[in-house]
Amino acid sequence: MTDVVIAGIGQTEVGEHWDIGLRDLAYAAIHDAIQDAGGLKPQSLFVGNMLAPNLSRQAHVGALIADYAGLTGIEAVTVEAAGASGGAALRQGYLAIASGMVDVALVVGVEKFTDKVGSGVDEALATTSDSDFEAVQGMTPTSQAALLMRRYMHEYEVPKDGFAGFALTAHTNGVANKNAMFRKAIKAETYAKAEMVSDPINMFDMAPNADGAAALLLTRRELIPSNWQSPLVKIAGSAASSDTLALHDRKDMLYFDTAQISAGKAMKQVGLTLDGIDFFEYFDMFSIYAALQLEAVGFAIKGNGWKLAADGSIGLKGKIPCATMGGMKARGFPGGAAGVYQAVEAAMQLRDQAGANQIADARFGLIQSLGGPASTAVSHILQRLD
Amino acid sequence: MTDVVIAGIGQTEVGEHWDIGLRDLAYAAIHDAIQDAGGLKPQSLFVGNMLAPNLSRQAHVGALIADYAGLTGIEAVTVEAAGASGGAALRQGYLAIASGMVDVALVVGVEKFTDKVGSGVDEALATTSDSDFEAVQGMTPTSQAALLMRRYMHEYEVPKDGFAGFALTAHTNGVANKNAMFRKAIKAETYAKAEMVSDPINMFDMAPNADGAAALLLTRRELIPSNWQSPLVKIAGSAASSDTLALHDRKDMLYFDTAQISAGKAMKQVGLTLDGIDFFEYFDMFSIYAALQLEAVGFAIKGNGWKLAADGSIGLKGKIPCATMGGMKARGFPGGAAGVYQAVEAAMQLRDQAGANQIADARFGLIQSLGGPASTAVSHILQRLD
Repeated sequence: MTDVVIAGIGQTEVGEHWDIGLRDLAYAAIHDAIQDAGGLKPQSLFVGNMLAPNLSRQAHVGALIADYAGLTGIEAVTVEAAGASGGAALRQGYLAIASGMVDVALVVGVEKFTDKVGSGVDEALATTSDSDFEAVQGMTPTSQAALLMRRYMHEYEVPKDGFAGFALTAHTNGVANKNAMFRKAIKAETYAKAEMVSDPINMFDMAPNADGAAALLLTRRELIPSNWQSPLVKIAGSAASSDTLALHDRKDMLYFDTAQISAGKAMKQVGLTLDGIDFFEYFDMFSIYAALQLEAVGFAIKGNGWKLAADGSIGLKGKIPCATMGGMKARGFPGGAAGVYQAVEAAMQLRDQAGANQIADARFGLIQSLGGPASTAVSHILQRLD
Repeated sequence: MTDVVIAGIGQTEVGEHWDIGLRDLAYAAIHDAIQDAGGLKPQSLFVGNMLAPNLSRQAHVGALIADYAGLTGIEAVTVEAAGASGGAALRQGYLAIASGMVDVALVVGVEKFTDKVGSGVDEALATTSDSDFEAVQGMTPTSQAALLMRRYMHEYEVPKDGFAGFALTAHTNGVANKNAMFRKAIKAETYAKAEMVSDPINMFDMAPNADGAAALLLTRRELIPSNWQSPLVKIAGSAASSDTLALHDRKDMLYFDTAQISAGKAMKQVGLTLDGIDFFEYFDMFSIYAALQLEAVGFAIKGNGWKLAADGSIGLKGKIPCATMGGMKARGFPGGAAGVYQAVEAAMQLRDQAGANQIADARFGLIQSLGGPASTAVSHILQRLD
């Protein structure tokens, strides 16, 4: 099979973009990605979007964005898998190139949370959990994650401040990321004193909903011009898995099956073990998600994921650096764009473009997007080619 | 490249299924498709859905359906392109098999209109047109199609009853389709007296929104068991194209560019001209769409599409049979499932399973799904292998 490579990356600042719309955000990221790829023109567009039909009253976003980006006529489609929408769109772009039917594919993730305010946002987010059995009871993704975190703390006797390391690491890494929503490091005391959102989840145990767009241009390796400058990044592994939406339907809610399955498949495709992975972009929408991902992927045994955050292992110079550009917590959570941001940031690491956050000699990065509490997990392994 | 073939088909009756939910509908179609395929197990699920985040307050439908269908763990994602969602999901399934990364892909289209009643349905449908420039003015897809039809009638001096043939043909063909919503033929007088919905669109110029699910199991030809019974159907051509959402953004709103581009590409892939196509499943959500598709694909010159309906050319024994199982008008319009129904019905024709509606010696069928007024068009050519 042909190698699928990243020819261009683009991203907007993550934050509250009150003054510009969904299509403008997408355009900005697409413009940068196409320019980064030296003007390479896509035939297909895969849009990762999570909630625009509710937040922005806009479905059919694929055609809308293709036209607004000056790409009228190309194939365009929206890919949705809740929070994993961006990762799922990347996977569709990958499959399109791998099929040999498409030469250049554009993957863009975009979300515009500020098109809605107040309870409308919670209502929109609640559509991603089981509507008939969870949302109907008033459950939101945050209250669901709170139940999960409480159970974890109870089962493994983890103190509340055992989770502080996730927020401290993310905010430390966010300082040097010019696209991050929050660029200020925090102290352990700040975490300890933080207001509760849904006990035991405090303000720093969850990521802020935010506006943003990120884009990737994918192509076959042989189509890259011979005078290419930056290190080439290959999509070496790609896999996805699904689980129940509702937590009560699982045998063991404290193990993220899909995170294990999808990462395992992706690693097998590359012929890689955990030792070969230089950094891990987990999906820290909630601290508890990050802890459970570290366990499911295999970096920690069950009940011990939080310790990697507590003992510094996930820091930039740690055993397995995570959230290297600030993660969801500091960079922000731009819904369906989140998975594409993960890929853009991982590509920056592998191209030596991560500035102060650069991980030395990074060759393989694992990125994993989650929809809900790993009801969907999409894993990709990005590889630097030299 | 490997041949992508249809190993199984399934569909529910189209109608108002007040008593069962979105996931139940999807399950019924999936069950039948897997059984039809002799129990072949999919690794990936592509769900075509148009409006569940609004109609059913349910996003993240991919994982939900995978689990409910007893396929927990497989890859699952939702594909959306307004009315073309089903066709777009089929194309993603096709690309997945063509990539060589997936052996068996399940494509299911599902919609549950009766989860919402009254103006909520119009509000949901309006999200598929340009929210900032059309929907915000109160425009719905029906009023948009009415403007388009009025312009066509004016430009080409077409009388109102010039469109009757589309409804007459569809309802004639619906009689023998046990899954059709309406199974009664109508007369020209009935069309002439029909109540106006949005002038000049009357009750028979548009398709009824309905609940339904249809499913396809795709695989590589070499994975089909050697004792296979029914004629094998190959996806011989697959292409998609996008255009502006808003009609006012087009140079010529009376020509469906995307219908031409996507059908042209698909035919080129097969090495086929129009003469080689035995039937055409157009997207007759509105009569005017069907007329414009016939022109864009090339069966009629500009301004003459309606004549093929008026002179009987689109009948089962006509030059180019269309809506052979009743089309959107008589079978019903089940949103994101519509494109998958088209494929299931075309497969039935090519397998000689179309009963009273069978087209003799059919070898190639063209199916085309539209999102909005051809803001998206997805074309597939299905071929009978002998």
